[in-house]
Amino acid sequence: MREARDLHSLMERVGAFADDRDWGKFHDPKNLAMALASEVGELLAIFRWVDNGDSDSHAMRAEVSPAVRDEIGDVGILFLLLCRRLEIDPADIVLRKLEANGVKYPVEFSTGNPEPPTASA
Amino acid sequence: MREARDLHSLMERVGAFADDRDWGKFHDPKNLAMALASEVGELLAIFRWVDNGDSDSHAMRAEVSPAVRDEIGDVGILFLLLCRRLEIDPADIVLRKLEANGVKYPVEFSTGNPEPPTASA
Amino acid sequence: MREARDLHSLMERVGAFADDRDWGKFHDPKNLAMALASEVGELLAIFRWVDNGDSDSHAMRAEVSPAVRDEIGDVGILFLLLCRRLEIDPADIVLRKLEANGVKYPVEFSTGNPEPPTASA
Amino acid sequence: MREARDLHSLMERVGAFADDRDWGKFHDPKNLAMALASEVGELLAIFRWVDNGDSDSHAMRAEVSPAVRDEIGDVGILFLLLCRRLEIDPADIVLRKLEANGVKYPVEFSTGNPEPPTASA
Repeated sequence: MREARDLHSLMERVGAFADDRDWGKFHDPKNLAMALASEVGELLAIFRWVDNGDSDSHAMRAEVSPAVRDEIGDVGILFLLLCRRLEIDPADIVLRKLEANGVKYPVEFSTGNPEPPTASA
Repeated sequence: MREARDLHSLMERVGAFADDRDWGKFHDPKNLAMALASEVGELLAIFRWVDNGDSDSHAMRAEVSPAVRDEIGDVGILFLLLCRRLEIDPADIVLRKLEANGVKYPVEFSTGNPEPPTASA
Repeated sequence: MREARDLHSLMERVGAFADDRDWGKFHDPKNLAMALASEVGELLAIFRWVDNGDSDSHAMRAEVSPAVRDEIGDVGILFLLLCRRLEIDPADIVLRKLEANGVKYPVEFSTGNPEPPTASA
Repeated sequence: MREARDLHSLMERVGAFADDRDWGKFHDPKNLAMALASEVGELLAIFRWVDNGDSDSHAMRAEVSPAVRDEIGDVGILFLLLCRRLEIDPADIVLRKLEANGVKYPVEFSTGNPEPPTASA
């Protein structure tokens, strides 16, 4: 479990797992998006009745933390499967979106405000 | 945009973007899970009326591809923000989940079958 | 189980169930939206690996149908809880949205096309 | 907009809207579930950065309320389209799920506790 620290190798590792099971025919982008949404739904279930202010400590509870880690692991796997299927470099896509977000949320207008400045105008 | 190829650096990069805007107070795990779900919802919207068999070519269309990349980029960003908030190593969590999935979906029973063998018993 | 055929009575019935358990403090709109999304995630899980053309017959299978009905029942319950919390008449909101959709999707431009005419322009 | 107060007529009204546009071919259960999830994602977007305690007043704000109503209207429409496609009586399914929930969440163990008693054991 040591070598796959960089995103590209990790994506290949996740892809090989699916290929070994001949899952490519199920893994079209529509189905992967749906699978991702169902895993995120399980993550939401963990937090749905917890107050915001308690959600950090809730996530760290010994009975809750393994489920949180499981669901976030699934999110990571499906993110990588989507990137691989669509021939997207996963690091690249994150950095490009971050760059776009930098234009949408300029520091001077967005400090302490999570909505784009145009939305609150 | 070159150096953050490994997941840990990428996570720090994404985290710094949020810290620069003082967004930590909005980024508790409950809110991040919800934000992730809303981005995944936008990804679903792209594919909702498209047949499975057409979803690869749909995703590659010139008018569709930028939106697909945007939403997948957001998924990557929120995955990394969740990992950072919960002090989870993102590569580690993916590899651990993959290992658990290897037990749940043994190659010999899972080839060509996307459901765990116990579920179809 | 006979009398609550109209939507308003059904909403009151669902609300009384929650009130009997003193769940109002958990049922703010944010939490209800999150709970709804988690139930919809379970519905997605049922269909994620099934082809469009097989999804009707899949939903009707004896092993699948009870789960489909459970999740759709939960969606109905959460729809009604959201309406009640926000003092929205559930029949009214559906009819108003339908009216708005009639403007967005005129019959003459929308026949056989699930996207608004402006979106495909 | 007066007559469709009962759920069955409302479902027929929603179904006729889709039939008029020949949308049946897009409305298999897989696609409807996906469309429902994307509308719920838009609802989540409205509440993602708002604290629980502020979410009632947020939903009632003049700039926010129309979007909340739009998304909840879409949830109602998709709930009814799913019921119609799967030949489910919408009032029935809600009442049956409520009955099942009554067993899962007995009043004496569930007052002030949103999780089933077995889950917290």
